[in-house]
Amino acid sequence: MKLNIAVLPGDGIGPEVTAQAKKVLKAIAMEFDHKFIFKEALAGAIAIDKSGNPLPDETLKLCKNTDAVLFGAIGDPKFDNDPSAKVRPEQGLLKLRKELGLFANIRPVKAYETLLSKSPLKKSIIEGTDISIYRELTGGIYFGEKRTSEDGNTSSDLCEYSRFEIERIAHLAFKAAQSRKGKVTLVDKANVLESSRLWRKVVTEIALEYPDVSLDFLFVDNAAMQMILNPKQFDVILTENMFGDIISDEASVIGGSIGLLASASVGDKYALFEPIHGSYPQATGKGIANPIASILSAAMLLEHFQLFEEANLIKQGVDKSLKLHITTPDLNSKYSHITTTKVGDFIEDFI
Amino acid sequence: MKLNIAVLPGDGIGPEVTAQAKKVLKAIAMEFDHKFIFKEALAGAIAIDKSGNPLPDETLKLCKNTDAVLFGAIGDPKFDNDPSAKVRPEQGLLKLRKELGLFANIRPVKAYETLLSKSPLKKSIIEGTDISIYRELTGGIYFGEKRTSEDGNTSSDLCEYSRFEIERIAHLAFKAAQSRKGKVTLVDKANVLESSRLWRKVVTEIALEYPDVSLDFLFVDNAAMQMILNPKQFDVILTENMFGDIISDEASVIGGSIGLLASASVGDKYALFEPIHGSYPQATGKGIANPIASILSAAMLLEHFQLFEEANLIKQGVDKSLKLHITTPDLNSKYSHITTTKVGDFIEDFI
Ligand SMILES: CC(C)[C@H](C(=O)O)[C@@H](O)C(=O)O
Ligand SMILES: CC(C)[C@H](C(=O)O)[C@@H](O)C(=O)O
Repeated sequence: MKLNIAVLPGDGIGPEVTAQAKKVLKAIAMEFDHKFIFKEALAGAIAIDKSGNPLPDETLKLCKNTDAVLFGAIGDPKFDNDPSAKVRPEQGLLKLRKELGLFANIRPVKAYETLLSKSPLKKSIIEGTDISIYRELTGGIYFGEKRTSEDGNTSSDLCEYSRFEIERIAHLAFKAAQSRKGKVTLVDKANVLESSRLWRKVVTEIALEYPDVSLDFLFVDNAAMQMILNPKQFDVILTENMFGDIISDEASVIGGSIGLLASASVGDKYALFEPIHGSYPQATGKGIANPIASILSAAMLLEHFQLFEEANLIKQGVDKSLKLHITTPDLNSKYSHITTTKVGDFIEDFI
Repeated sequence: MKLNIAVLPGDGIGPEVTAQAKKVLKAIAMEFDHKFIFKEALAGAIAIDKSGNPLPDETLKLCKNTDAVLFGAIGDPKFDNDPSAKVRPEQGLLKLRKELGLFANIRPVKAYETLLSKSPLKKSIIEGTDISIYRELTGGIYFGEKRTSEDGNTSSDLCEYSRFEIERIAHLAFKAAQSRKGKVTLVDKANVLESSRLWRKVVTEIALEYPDVSLDFLFVDNAAMQMILNPKQFDVILTENMFGDIISDEASVIGGSIGLLASASVGDKYALFEPIHGSYPQATGKGIANPIASILSAAMLLEHFQLFEEANLIKQGVDKSLKLHITTPDLNSKYSHITTTKVGDFIEDFI
């Protein structure tokens, strides 16, 4: 298979981890005789520094002309504490999601047998957890109208959803549940929010088309609690943009490190793959960033093109690196000097 | 001291737990020679059933004419899954918060030494945790304009904040930090939301008035993760309404049971005290509801009126009940038949 892959390393540890994912994909191409063509482009703070724009036109154009995007991370603290900054790295990512129509962000959460002891949660709580979070990614309060009054003393964000936006991701979630444990949990705040009531109404209707899938509901506050009390109760979680952001980062504690969590963002035409950890500026350049989330994002990319055997080989490599403690310091109490590159090399060699 | 206390037991387990809190307050009145006058009123689903209104005028009037409100819980599943219901129990609570101007909801989160093993989190993670969450309670997306298009296919909620709303709760949070560990963490999503950027701007300004308190910032997704990875890093958490709802329910896992968490909602004139657990309909009438959160809410009520000795006596009673395993089944693996009333009786006797 021939695939054109746009690589957007972004900021902070983005370039370091993406380099490992690329390396692993190259090894897969060799092993399975595929042709993967990588083209790099700028996004995020680094793109602002070079061009004033967190998503330069060339970058967007490149993404629209490739089969898939491999994304690193974006964000830089120099923008976070400047509430008056006009341009921000995050705008680049949000615009990219919107322009590519990536309405569903899929985040698998698993407890790895070899890492059970790394989690802040007790082994008995997390053992066997296997969740797939479907987060709506191009609507809600992220993209609703933003206003600040002239005197700067009142600001607002609008959280808006339309039936169509809910339907398309709901179908994906129910289909996913069919090939999993057959359960969808809608996380919302329908006792307070009008938009959540629309979610509940539309999702309830769509559930009728999937009689083999059961549907239940949780208020987001309760869900944030249940995720820790009893994560095994979940199969597919379906939720809106902001709640999905919170719940999925929270769920990362189950695996013991956010450095393990990959995600796929898909739409009708395009797909983007990125680790869920951010740019982690404190770790930049130190060789301590965990590349596994980025490498597993590459595996999700392969699955997206039905290359399951290839994806599985990557996953086996990851499992083996975890088992042999060939991992970065966040997961490693045994050896403290295994770098980002070493982990990538190990998985490359394995393949 | 003479105090007029409005008691709003509400729905589900509300009446059962509130009865215990009342009993404990009566014991305190006897022991310390205070005069507490209790007046009960309806709120929530039970008020809808009886009068069509989740917050009848008499109830509101009573609350405005008393020194403090002791609240149980509200909510009933028959409304949750009916997205088209016009009247909902939650509206009663939200209206009460708004009408009484209860802009700050204060939720202490502590790891009880005797309960460390009950938490889904490892002992080493939670030991020594002592957080006070300041959640804004009368603004944001809870109270912003709600709209649904005529065809019913688009719905929205507006999240709006003004400088004034942020300032008043920020002052409370910084003052609280002064008598604690001197640290405020603002939880927001300033990399995406305009309203969060206003929070960051205003809170940064106010911090200048409290040079003895340090201020830091966390994005809400990261905060949801940090709360589990390392809760000891927090002292005072300051946040807006929706994020506070999620983060504080999540934080309840630290104590091992949401049945332990009390809250105070305060404004310029009025104050209301309630457990943070909801109406928990599945447990209603079974005698298994944990009354401690309600009893600790009564202790917070006493503290509000500077009755610290009295409040401490209640807390000692609670500690003792926990130590001796005189607790409801949620916390009790030793004795399985200790009821809501028994726990209340024990603490009453202790006083
Ligand atoms: C960087 C930020 C805008 C982004 C989000 O909130 O969506 C990130 O937290 C994520 O979850 O991908
Ligand atoms: C019942 C509900 C409206 C309420 C809220 O969301 O504020 C509850 O969850 C709480 O936290 O007090």
